[in-house]
This record gives sequence, C-alpha cells and structure tokens, in this order.
Amino acid sequence: MRTASLSVIEDGGVTTASGFRASGVHAGFRMNPHRLDLALVVADEPCATAGVFTQNVFCAAPVRRNRRLLEGSVQGQCFGMMRAVVVNSGNANAATGEAGLAAAEEAGQIVADALGCPPDEVLVSSTGVIGVPLSMEAFQTGAPAAASLLARSGGHDAACAIMTTDTRSKECAVSFMGDSIGYEGCTFAVGGMAKGSGMIMPDMATMISVITTDAPVKPYDLRQALKRATDVSFNKVTVDSDTSTNDTCILMASGAAAPEGSQPFEPGSRAFALFEEALEQVCVDLARQMAKDGEGATKLVDVHVRGAKTDADADAAARTVANSPLVKTAIAGHDANWGRIAAALGRSGAEFRQEDVSISIMGIPVCEKGLALAFDEDAALAAFEDAEIAIDVDLGAGEAETTVWTCDLTHDYITINGDYRT
Amino acid sequence: MRTASLSVIEDGGVTTASGFRASGVHAGFRMNPHRLDLALVVADEPCATAGVFTQNVFCAAPVRRNRRLLEGSVQGQCFGMMRAVVVNSGNANAATGEAGLAAAEEAGQIVADALGCPPDEVLVSSTGVIGVPLSMEAFQTGAPAAASLLARSGGHDAACAIMTTDTRSKECAVSFMGDSIGYEGCTFAVGGMAKGSGMIMPDMATMISVITTDAPVKPYDLRQALKRATDVSFNKVTVDSDTSTNDTCILMASGAAAPEGSQPFEPGSRAFALFEEALEQVCVDLARQMAKDGEGATKLVDVHVRGAKTDADADAAARTVANSPLVKTAIAGHDANWGRIAAALGRSGAEFRQEDVSISIMGIPVCEKGLALAFDEDAALAAFEDAEIAIDVDLGAGEAETTVWTCDLTHDYITINGDYRT
Repeated sequence: MRTASLSVIEDGGVTTASGFRASGVHAGFRMNPHRLDLALVVADEPCATAGVFTQNVFCAAPVRRNRRLLEGSVQGQCFGMMRAVVVNSGNANAATGEAGLAAAEEAGQIVADALGCPPDEVLVSSTGVIGVPLSMEAFQTGAPAAASLLARSGGHDAACAIMTTDTRSKECAVSFMGDSIGYEGCTFAVGGMAKGSGMIMPDMATMISVITTDAPVKPYDLRQALKRATDVSFNKVTVDSDTSTNDTCILMASGAAAPEGSQPFEPGSRAFALFEEALEQVCVDLARQMAKDGEGATKLVDVHVRGAKTDADADAAARTVANSPLVKTAIAGHDANWGRIAAALGRSGAEFRQEDVSISIMGIPVCEKGLALAFDEDAALAAFEDAEIAIDVDLGAGEAETTVWTCDLTHDYITINGDYRT
Repeated sequence: MRTASLSVIEDGGVTTASGFRASGVHAGFRMNPHRLDLALVVADEPCATAGVFTQNVFCAAPVRRNRRLLEGSVQGQCFGMMRAVVVNSGNANAATGEAGLAAAEEAGQIVADALGCPPDEVLVSSTGVIGVPLSMEAFQTGAPAAASLLARSGGHDAACAIMTTDTRSKECAVSFMGDSIGYEGCTFAVGGMAKGSGMIMPDMATMISVITTDAPVKPYDLRQALKRATDVSFNKVTVDSDTSTNDTCILMASGAAAPEGSQPFEPGSRAFALFEEALEQVCVDLARQMAKDGEGATKLVDVHVRGAKTDADADAAARTVANSPLVKTAIAGHDANWGRIAAALGRSGAEFRQEDVSISIMGIPVCEKGLALAFDEDAALAAFEDAEIAIDVDLGAGEAETTVWTCDLTHDYITINGDYRT
C-alpha cells in the first residue's frame, strides 16, 4: 500500500504532527508507582476531531460521554472541535452506572481546569478493569502533573501510559509533501499511538488509539476518512460486533502544517486522497502492531483470502480462520495443519465448493482444489521460525479479497488471562 | 428434566437397548496397538435409522455417503432402514476428494461383507486427521475381527474405539416402562455413546454419537425426534454453523422391546412423548459429558441465560459467553471476573439494556442491574473448587431462556492442540 509519496518517520508518534503536545504520568490508577497510567494529548487550538467507538451494549461511561460531545450536525456521526484527549489505564469505568457517567464528567472537568479550557473540549477515555469506581483522586493529582509536562517530545510517554497488558508501546507516523497537491513548501504528518494487547481473541481487551495530523481537514470529512481507515485496519483485527466495552479511536486535525487561512483538503482532491492514504498506513501499522503484541503472542499472522464471491464472504472466511483457536494453537506449535484452516473456512458461512479451494502457508502450497498436497515438512518447519506467518487462501468462487491480522495462541495467553484480575 | 418415569441405567450405553450388539477393536488406523480404533454397532435386523450431520462446506466423504444412504422420502431429511454403523478413529477421511468418497464406499462394502448384509445398510463414520487417505487395509483387518466380537456386552469397547483426544468414554442409557402407555409388561431403553473432546471451542474436533433404542419408532418420526433432541443437547455445546467436517449423530430404533406386530409409537401419543423425553435425557447427558471432557478442561460450565427477548437472543447471549476465551480462562483461574461476562453479553447481538442485567456465579450475585455488587471473594474462591460451574444471567428483557454447556480454557488445551498432528 505504501507509495513513493509517503515517508515513514522514524520514532514518529502522536506528537509528530505539528500543533500537538503530549505527556504521560503516574497518577495512581495503578499500584505500581513506576508505571505511567495517565496520558494527555493536547492541541494548541481547538481542532477538528472525529471518533469511532465500540458497538458493545455494555459500553463504558467515557464512551457515552465522548459520543455526546462529538455528535456533529449529521445524525449519529461522531465529530466536533476539541482541545484534548485524556486516557487513563488501570480502570475502564465500565459497568459503573450513573456514578460512572458522573465520574467521566468530573474527570473531563478536572483536566479542563488543568488546561484552562472548557470541559466539553476534553475527551476522556479509560481502559482497565470493569465494574470498579474510577478514582477522582488520581485525576486530581495526575491532571495538573500531566498538563505541566506537555511537550512536543511527550508522545512516547503518552503511548506508554495507555498500555495495559501490552508488552511494548505502539506508535508510528508518516509524512507527505504538499508541493504536488497545491500546498507548496508544506510537509504534512499523520501519526498516532495505540494500545490493545488482548486482540488475540474476538472478545479482546480494550483497544484505544489516538491519531493526530497537521493537515487541514474539516470535522465531517475527518470522520469519513477515519471510518474508512478503521474499516481496513483496526476492524480487520477485530469485528465491530466483537468490540470491548471501551474501544475508541480518536483522530484530531490541527491544520498547523498548512499556511494560515489556506483551504482545508477537499474530499475528491489529490490532497485528500494522499491524506487518506497516510491515515490508512498509520492505522494499518498500528493494527498490525496490536496483532503482533496479542496477549502471549509469538507470531503475527496475516490471513489473506482471495477468490471470494463477495466482500462479506472474504471477510467471514478470513475472520473465521483468524479467530480459530485450533489454527492459532497449530501456528504456535509450528504445525502446517491446513485441515484446521479448511474446517474453519467450511463453517465460516462463505459460499464456495471444497473442490475449488487452495491454501498456502508461508508461500508453500499445502492444499490444491480441496486436496492435500505433498509438501516438504522440513521447509515448512523452517518457515515457521519467521515472526510473521502468512496464510493465503483462494476460495475459487469469485474476485473479492481481504486481509485480516491475528496472532498465535500460546500458553502465555492462558497465564495472562487466567491471572489478570488477581 | 428428569421425570419419575425415566430410570437411569448404571453402566448403560449403546447396547443397552435390545436388538443391538457392538464391538471395538484395534484395526490399525492408529500406531499404538493397544488403542482401539474401529467401533461396530449392529442391529439384529435392518431397523429405522435417522442421522443429523455437519453443515460444514468441507464435509467429509463418509458424511456425504451417509446423507445419500439416509435420504428418506421427504426431501433433505436423513432417515432410512439400516443394519450397522462402523466408526474409525485416527483418520477423518475429510478433504480427500473423489478418492475419499470411493474409500468410504469401499469401507462400507468391506464391513457389509463381514456382516453378510448389503453395503447400503452400513453407515460409515470417520474421525481424526484431515486430508490423509483412509487405510483400506485397516478395514480389511478390522472389520472381520470386529464382526466376530460383536456382543450385547460390547458397548463399552465400541465407546472406547471412537475416542480421539477424549480422556474418557462417554456412555449413558435410560429406561421407561410400557405399562402406562399401552405396552403392558414392556420396558424400553434408549442408550448411546459419543466422542468429542475438542468441544471446548467453536471449531471443535469432530463430534460423533451413536444412539440406539428398542422402542418401535418409524424412520421419519425418529428423524424428527432426533432433530429436536440434538437441538437442545449437542447443538447447545456447539453451534450448527460451527460444526466440524465430520460431525455425526445417528439414532437406530429396533423396536425389539415391543411385542412382535405391535404398533409403532405415534407422534402426539404419551408413548412418543416419553420416548422423546428419554432421548433428550440421553443426548443432554452425553453432551454434558463432552463439554466436561473438553480438551484440557478442569470444569464443566453451565451458562444459563434467562430474561431474553427471544429464543435467538437467549441462544446468542449464552453462546457468546460460553465461547469467550476470556471468560473461560477466568474460570480456569478461579476468578469471578463478571466484567468479561458482561463484555461478552454486550457484543452478543442480543437486545437488552445494560442497566437491566444481573449476573450470578455459583449462585453468588456479582452484578445487579448492570452494577457491581460487593461479594465475598473467599466464598467465590471456595465455590470455584466445584467441578461444575454455574453462570446465571438475567437480561431483564423478556421471557426466553436457554442453557449452553462449555468448559474452562487451560494450559492443557494449548498443549493438546499445539502438538496434535506432530
């Protein structure tokens, strides 16, 4: 997907785009005093902001509040003008009822006071344990501390502060030049951070991502771009209907890289297309980082399905393979057990005939036209040493295709999740 | 569900009903010479037989053959008159193409020759590895041996011979008296065997069950009764659309316990109702045995959902909880983590409001009206020592309810499935 027009920015993240500062502090949501647990991302000015949120009925209090604040002029869409996003880790503020909603409001007020802006310009996100009251004390201590540390160089601390069972922070950024798109001399950036480590399973832990850009984009257009980008990235790691109680992706556009008074990128223009390409690349990169850091994971798995009759069939087939515990344990065991892939395809609901299906693992054909192929088991074993495993399926039923990302299923997943709350 | 009219028969199984003999031998599908791998269940006379089979697109060759043989006079229904069922373990004869279909036919012929009956009266089932040619040699050796060992006492050997990763054989039988239903002096039995140990996950290993009865029931009525019984038993452990390539449940009715020339049980009669009750109890018992013996399982988990708006909602909610790896790992870790149950309910697609939901674990209320309840953590920990864990959910949205069975998710699941084929 990468074009020559986009450049990856080394060590890029949520403060790569101009017009944003960030910080991460230990506020006290967690016991461990060395663990950052409050992240703040702040725009220099109120700026265009869009959000995509969980569809879970048990959606958390902060998600409800964010939806209300971002309710744009178009029904049900989530966009508006915002100054800041604050994220706490360690407590999800979910299943907390009216008290939880009040806590989310109060948290927004505390952060707004620390920043000197209206509370309705502050989005609040939470991730962690469900059903436990959110500590206001931690916000009272943490918000002023975080505000005082805000810096252009604070992106990494913010990315660390939103981690839960993640083993590493997830950040990336890309840039593109304005010369060929009517913004001579300008360089635009899109960058972001994400957390989400339980993405290994359909009922993963919370995913939270904050992305910023200094391209000039209007709130409604930002929302459209975000929806498209999340559909081919974060939503290819997990299903919409499989979201957790807190899943959140927020995108802010400062426009700071464009000359003052210049026109925003218009949908349909080359500038907007380039922006969307950059946004998609950032989202896909963060999504793959999440899959790779799945709880207990040792492998990133790319499941590519082509030859499907419809897009929905491609998606169902790829997801069913990607979610199959039997496929995931086989990969952990370095076992090219394509029978489990076939069984998953067969129950996916996708329309195809078994005698038309071909499957490759790491480029090694293992099943052709529904039948086993003899393959070099030693070569397959060697291929499994790679940290990224590719599964390619051709359903032989049409032209649609998609890729879904997942990881292997290991003993460590059980250890992490059998002993999380205690 | 048990009524005073039904008696559980200790050590009962697939040969408890009169008119049936069975055996289990080592035929050579497996390397280990001490492991039985060929089961034979034979009726003294051709008798009414019904089958329910996997919906998986990658359905195995023997399933295709059985469907063809059992195609009754009513379109798409599976019933007919049969003499025998043979089951081999160690090889699924799935994803084997035309050669696999020919192998299934040949296996039927070999067994028919050993029994002296037409091949079209012999159903063949297979379970094991996918994509490997079925050994005819093993049938040639095993079929005569199994035929020579057929006995009224052979049910347990047969039940052992169909095991794959099962840690114990699964058998049960119940009986009911004919006096109050117009069959004075008669005692009828329904009994069966099952295998299926990967039922812990939606893409489980194969489930195979053979059930017999000596009640007189016509093939079409038998099929209707079997469909109803599997819907509330085996299909509550796994979803229809989540079946493996080989899932099979066969029910044979000899009528041998009724006086010669007597009328078959008529649908709508008290006799038929009692038969259906007995069949359901056998199916539920076998289904729970399967869930309890899920790969790596230490607990049987009953997920009971009530207060759902529709039956479909109850089913979706219960299944989503039962299939949630996060819920299952929490149970393995003795953790009353109801937040994971709430998150699963929220993404199940069932219609409800979070403020109407209540959840109990082992009878201990942990969530009421969507909010956390303080509960005695020590009492909860003690309750988790039980081998059977009860999760009760009230969605507060209607009157529908259901129960789904599953098991916990442990390290042993990973060990078994990360190292199965090698």
